[in-house]
Amino acid sequence: MADSFRIGRLAVIGLGLIGGSFVKAIRHAGLADSIIGYDRAADTMSAALAAGALDEGAETPHAAVANADVIVLATPVRVIISLLEELAPALAPHAKVFDLGSTKREIVAAMNRLPVSVEAIGGHPMAGKTHGGWAATDGTLFQNAPFALCATERTSIIEGSWAETIVRAIGAKPLFLDPVEHDEAVARVSHLPYILSSTLVRAAQPTGAALQLAAGSYRDTSRVSAHDPRMYGDILLTNRDNVLAAVRRAQDVLGELESALDNGDEEALKIWMKQTRNEK
Amino acid sequence: MADSFRIGRLAVIGLGLIGGSFVKAIRHAGLADSIIGYDRAADTMSAALAAGALDEGAETPHAAVANADVIVLATPVRVIISLLEELAPALAPHAKVFDLGSTKREIVAAMNRLPVSVEAIGGHPMAGKTHGGWAATDGTLFQNAPFALCATERTSIIEGSWAETIVRAIGAKPLFLDPVEHDEAVARVSHLPYILSSTLVRAAQPTGAALQLAAGSYRDTSRVSAHDPRMYGDILLTNRDNVLAAVRRAQDVLGELESALDNGDEEALKIWMKQTRNEK
Repeated sequence: MADSFRIGRLAVIGLGLIGGSFVKAIRHAGLADSIIGYDRAADTMSAALAAGALDEGAETPHAAVANADVIVLATPVRVIISLLEELAPALAPHAKVFDLGSTKREIVAAMNRLPVSVEAIGGHPMAGKTHGGWAATDGTLFQNAPFALCATERTSIIEGSWAETIVRAIGAKPLFLDPVEHDEAVARVSHLPYILSSTLVRAAQPTGAALQLAAGSYRDTSRVSAHDPRMYGDILLTNRDNVLAAVRRAQDVLGELESALDNGDEEALKIWMKQTRNEK
Repeated sequence: MADSFRIGRLAVIGLGLIGGSFVKAIRHAGLADSIIGYDRAADTMSAALAAGALDEGAETPHAAVANADVIVLATPVRVIISLLEELAPALAPHAKVFDLGSTKREIVAAMNRLPVSVEAIGGHPMAGKTHGGWAATDGTLFQNAPFALCATERTSIIEGSWAETIVRAIGAKPLFLDPVEHDEAVARVSHLPYILSSTLVRAAQPTGAALQLAAGSYRDTSRVSAHDPRMYGDILLTNRDNVLAAVRRAQDVLGELESALDNGDEEALKIWMKQTRNEK
């Protein structure tokens, strides 16, 4: 029964904003008997231990997953993919593997290559903050956030699964999606906002008067540009086809505006602005 | 003395979000002996009168400005420009003319054509909301907002002027700018955010799973797209050169990302993301 599922020994690898907040949320929900954590940054490990968020700190990812009942990978996407391969031999039989990465096709494909005794489900919480790291972690980060869950070939059942129990325990709202559907959707509502926000910051380069005049519209629109490039590079590279398609649609839309302005075509300009408004 | 400046009879033309909020803020500050208002929408006039925000409603812009000591124009930019020409003969000698439009070069040029007896100053409050209209008006809208003031040939002095007194009375922070400098700056920090936010909405077109997954980053980045097309068309068309330059910079920035992704060039991708981050 999913309702009575409890995590015995939980291993979380990666204790940045997402992994660290996940540990705090699980702790608060009391869903795990013990939590062992690993982060490659020594200061993150010290901070997590000092905060009492972990029962144990591991020296290596391998040490973290040995004897763990549930393993949660919360590193950059391509590190998750490498870890799935590297850690496979170290996983306990019947271990449950979960991840919190932002793209799902490549991760789910790597999960499909795990030993058959291991059950794996892909996860993606739609929550974040401008700045990352342990200092920004927050046990309420996932409250009411949409949380995508993707079945793998290693998943016996997804609705009502242990993963759904975890998602509900941390206050998030599970959405069951195919990895292909997931990656196409996040290119539109997550990666493209990041890209256009970053484009604004680079193209605006406010200085002097512009900096003094910058108000809410610049602040809001530029906010999501401040992501960690290491993390975001992995996201874009593991969703390259969908991101490229989204970028090209954006280029077409900007091209239409450029023509309308360049030609002083008021009718075309009106249509550009009205379509924007209607399509919201 | 600027400090002892009071408005006798104030006429405000255009009672949408900006003009209506201005009336409320002036009322709250008690800076005017009487306020007469005009809006072409009958329901806006009724709402403003019912709210007690006006001492008098005018039937026409001409009736509003007759005998007014200070005239504030708060309509779309190109309507402000037309009104400056049409109302010139109706202005009292020594009337003071002010505006709240979002671009300044064309408005200041029109102000320069006013009778020499009239003093005029261009204004632009950097404040707004997603939705406009009288229902959205708020007397605290300008609190702590940057407020650009542009001198005209009709301005005897700008720092310490009656316009500065008005700006400070409504809680805003005056910034003295040349109209050329102003328009270049707002293209970067106001018009480009609107354009990229609108581009996101048109290029993302979230439906189905994407709509369910849309979280903070999509919400924040798409927020400022919801402006009134009539008002915004005037803004873009009276700042066409600067807006075109900003759009073309954005196209170049997106083109760099497209190449990096298309070529799988991780180094170029890293540079693209790092530059964004550093330039904030």
